This record gives sequence, C-alpha cells and structure tokens, in this order.
Amino acid sequence: MADAALFEFLHTEMVAELWAHHSDPGPGGQKMSLCVLEGMGFRVGQALGERLPQETLAFREELDILKFLCKDLWVAVFQKQMDSLRTNHQGTYVLQDNSFPLLIRMASGLQYLEEAPKFLAFTCGLLRGALSTLGIKSLVTASVASLPT
Amino acid sequence: MADAALFEFLHTEMVAELWAHHSDPGPGGQKMSLCVLEGMGFRVGQALGERLPQETLAFREELDILKFLCKDLWVAVFQKQMDSLRTNHQGTYVLQDNSFPLLIRMASGLQYLEEAPKFLAFTCGLLRGALSTLGIKSLVTASVASLPT
Repeated sequence: MADAALFEFLHTEMVAELWAHHSDPGPGGQKMSLCVLEGMGFRVGQALGERLPQETLAFREELDILKFLCKDLWVAVFQKQMDSLRTNHQGTYVLQDNSFPLLIRMASGLQYLEEAPKFLAFTCGLLRGALSTLGIKSLVTASVASLPT
Repeated sequence: MADAALFEFLHTEMVAELWAHHSDPGPGGQKMSLCVLEGMGFRVGQALGERLPQETLAFREELDILKFLCKDLWVAVFQKQMDSLRTNHQGTYVLQDNSFPLLIRMASGLQYLEEAPKFLAFTCGLLRGALSTLGIKSLVTASVASLPT
C-alpha cells in the first residue's frame, strides 16, 4: 500500500514548494512559510476531526480526546501510535513520538535540527485543527531533542 | 481508514494555497500555478514509481506499464482502478475515470468545468512522473467532459 508514502512525498514537496516561494531568506519569510504550513495543517486537521470521531465513541473528557489523537488520528495519518502522552493535569499535554515519520528520513546530526521546524509545522496545525473540531482551543508547539536515527 | 481522506484534504489545501499565492489573476498567474502543481505531481509520481514496481512484475511493454498505472498506481493513490484504458496503438493512450475522486466533491454544472484544471494538474504530473521513472517520456493532458455526479 502506497498511501503512507503518498502523504509523505506530498508533504515533502509541499514544504519544498513553500520554501522556494517565500524566497525572502530572512526570518520573516521563513516565519511566513511556517504559518502557511501550519494553517494548511489546521484545515486538514479540522476536516479529519470531523470525519474520524463518527467511527469512535463520543468524547467526554479532555484526556479522552488527547488519547484519541495519540491513537486513532496518529494511526490514520502516520500508521503508528504516538509513543507517549504525559500531562500535568492542568491543561498541558506532552505527546512524544520517537520515530516521527516526517523526520525519520532526515540524517541525524545537530546541523539538521534547524531544518526540523518546517517538517513539523504542518503536523502542529493538524493537531490544533483536530482539537478545534473536537471543541478544544489549543496552542500546539513542537520541539525536537534529537532526530530519529 | 482516513488515509484517502488525508490525501484529498491535503490536495485541496495545496490547490487553494497555490491559487491564493500566485495572486496574479490573469491567465499568466494561473498557468504558473498549474505548472507548479504539475511539477509537484511529477516529483511525487517519480518517487511513487520507484517504490511501487518492486512489488510487481518487471515491465516489458508500454501497454503493460499503462495497465500497471491504471490498476496498481491508481489503487495506491485513489483506492480504485481506472475505469477504462484505450489506445490507438501508436503511442497514444486514453485513460478514463468516471468518478475521479479529486473532482467528485465538486457540484456538477458547466460553470464549474473551468475550475476543473486546477484539480487535475497534480494528477497529470503524477502520471508523467511515474511514467518517467518507468522509462517513458510522455505528455499527459487531462480533459473533463462532465463532472462526476
């Protein structure tokens, strides 16, 4: 099945295209591209959020919704579950994926870490969009400690 | 499974984003956007072409390759086979899909026909890219007689 590859290839092209477009090489142009990617992710996440939960149970609690994202949504998009979900029980959740598919093809090395944000923006938006459809306003940020090897 | 929806949503966003970008409203701007979409499709098609045939038989004849595109590639991307494949046996092939997924959500009506090319450019590129990987230089164009209902 090539679906997973299709999404990854398309994502890669999209990032490359947006980077080529906002050719302003300064931080302003990059930030703009990240915003555009995040916005696309948001709208795709919203649409997926509307579609997925019909097949699952109704959600009552915030934690259930987060668990749903870590399992069902992640599997639908990346064919794997999130590796861990932690919370401080005050509205902050930390979702960890140790082999994030959109980064896994990158070579490891600190010098590539700066390139990581552009491969994360779409997915941040995707989560924010899905949460938005499920009734939660959120702020989603990503951080990369080390690249998957 | 949400993969199919994911690709469709992402494709829709990509078209919308590129249309918003090349804000030159004249035919020049639109042509540019179509070229960009076609180019993205081409590179995704190339990558898919490299990936898919490993699972299938080696191809000898042009017609075999075209059949492969109509079956395996189309299923991988759209979860359905192409409806028909015709040829004049002189190097021209006509592939027909009566319910093309990227158009099927559009309302039918002649006034929407002009909007169709932007939803076809990526897929034209995809076919051209896959053919290129499989060793065939081609020219792929699309035409829509009526929108799927």
